Amino acid sequence: MKRAIVLLSGGLDSTTCMALADSEGYKICALSFDYGQRHKRELQSSIKVAEYYRVESHKIIKLDNLGGSALTDLALDVPDYNGSNSIPITYVPSRNLIFLSYAGGLAETLNAQAIFIGVNALDYSGYPDCRPEFINAFKEALRFGTKKGIEGTPIEILTPLINLSKSEIVQLACKHKAPLNLTTSCYRGGDKACGTCDSCILRKKGFKEAGMPDPIEYV
Amino acid sequence: MKRAIVLLSGGLDSTTCMALADSEGYKICALSFDYGQRHKRELQSSIKVAEYYRVESHKIIKLDNLGGSALTDLALDVPDYNGSNSIPITYVPSRNLIFLSYAGGLAETLNAQAIFIGVNALDYSGYPDCRPEFINAFKEALRFGTKKGIEGTPIEILTPLINLSKSEIVQLACKHKAPLNLTTSCYRGGDKACGTCDSCILRKKGFKEAGMPDPIEYV
Repeated sequence: MKRAIVLLSGGLDSTTCMALADSEGYKICALSFDYGQRHKRELQSSIKVAEYYRVESHKIIKLDNLGGSALTDLALDVPDYNGSNSIPITYVPSRNLIFLSYAGGLAETLNAQAIFIGVNALDYSGYPDCRPEFINAFKEALRFGTKKGIEGTPIEILTPLINLSKSEIVQLACKHKAPLNLTTSCYRGGDKACGTCDSCILRKKGFKEAGMPDPIEYV
Repeated sequence: MKRAIVLLSGGLDSTTCMALADSEGYKICALSFDYGQRHKRELQSSIKVAEYYRVESHKIIKLDNLGGSALTDLALDVPDYNGSNSIPITYVPSRNLIFLSYAGGLAETLNAQAIFIGVNALDYSGYPDCRPEFINAFKEALRFGTKKGIEGTPIEILTPLINLSKSEIVQLACKHKAPLNLTTSCYRGGDKACGTCDSCILRKKGFKEAGMPDPIEYV
């Protein structure tokens, strides 16, 4: 029996990871976080995607908001995409570190062999905790810090999207018939996607380059 | 201006870390966790210790309980100390990983240079996430996963107790006049310490070998 924790935000990337975990025969425990994000509606998407895949369980963990980001501090505006190379104000300090740490604890508790996370470091917002260097270092921390690691069966961290472009992710999702109509990507979190924040721009670019229609609505 | 996050459980080790951070001139942000631990009274100790040191701030983060440990699952009994080398049932999967991840996020948000954590791997309960191998791997994950790391000023993880015996920790605490009367170590969490769980046995051993009286009450 193979079991995996799938980090599920309810967006395009994590839903593609769900499709992959499902196609590989894992029993899936979906893990989502209510961390004070302004785009809380993504949690509704995560619930729908988890139901679609008939997961074994779906945990939504409430995390105290640490602030310091336009995604969690309503006093800061989400900027439009500007193509800058610097780390944007939507960066949430330690977000993937905390998410993966929780996933690691849950993997020990539920005896899961793997964690799927949909990070990618190509068409991305420049967050440090989406890069392979971070993921590789985290694998080591998890290996040394857990019972499974000590016992010689370390929890795997699977990042199937890490080297894919957004267009390749869309193609992969479509190949696996992922329910992209249920997903939400917009940082601004309105009923319709804004179409101009980093996340919307990357998503639209992905669909356009893949030659596929994006099934969600934009303002 | 030096600022540090000090992980503060309210026990002997973390209070000794507070004393060290204070003596080194750091402005201190104490960080504690309400993670469903049965010995929740340690949080009261953490509040008293934080007040004693007049910290800049004290954050108590509520974490959803992931289960899988006698410290968080009331259906499991806390065993008496048995001297075994295996990882005990009081092990909480990913606890220090989650604590340090939060501390890393807070260090970014508050612009702190260092995190103090009172792990030690000599007179300890055998938890994998108290060992130097884990701490060193985590340092790398934090370095690669944060803005401060990318900018060349990585957050330091300071573990001043990691190679000390419990007796040496007691001596160090006394040298720095740490308020050990305010601390709580017992896993069973009663009004008086049980004196027989792993944590009580290690604490009593430390005071005895240091030739110092333990100022807290035992049943």
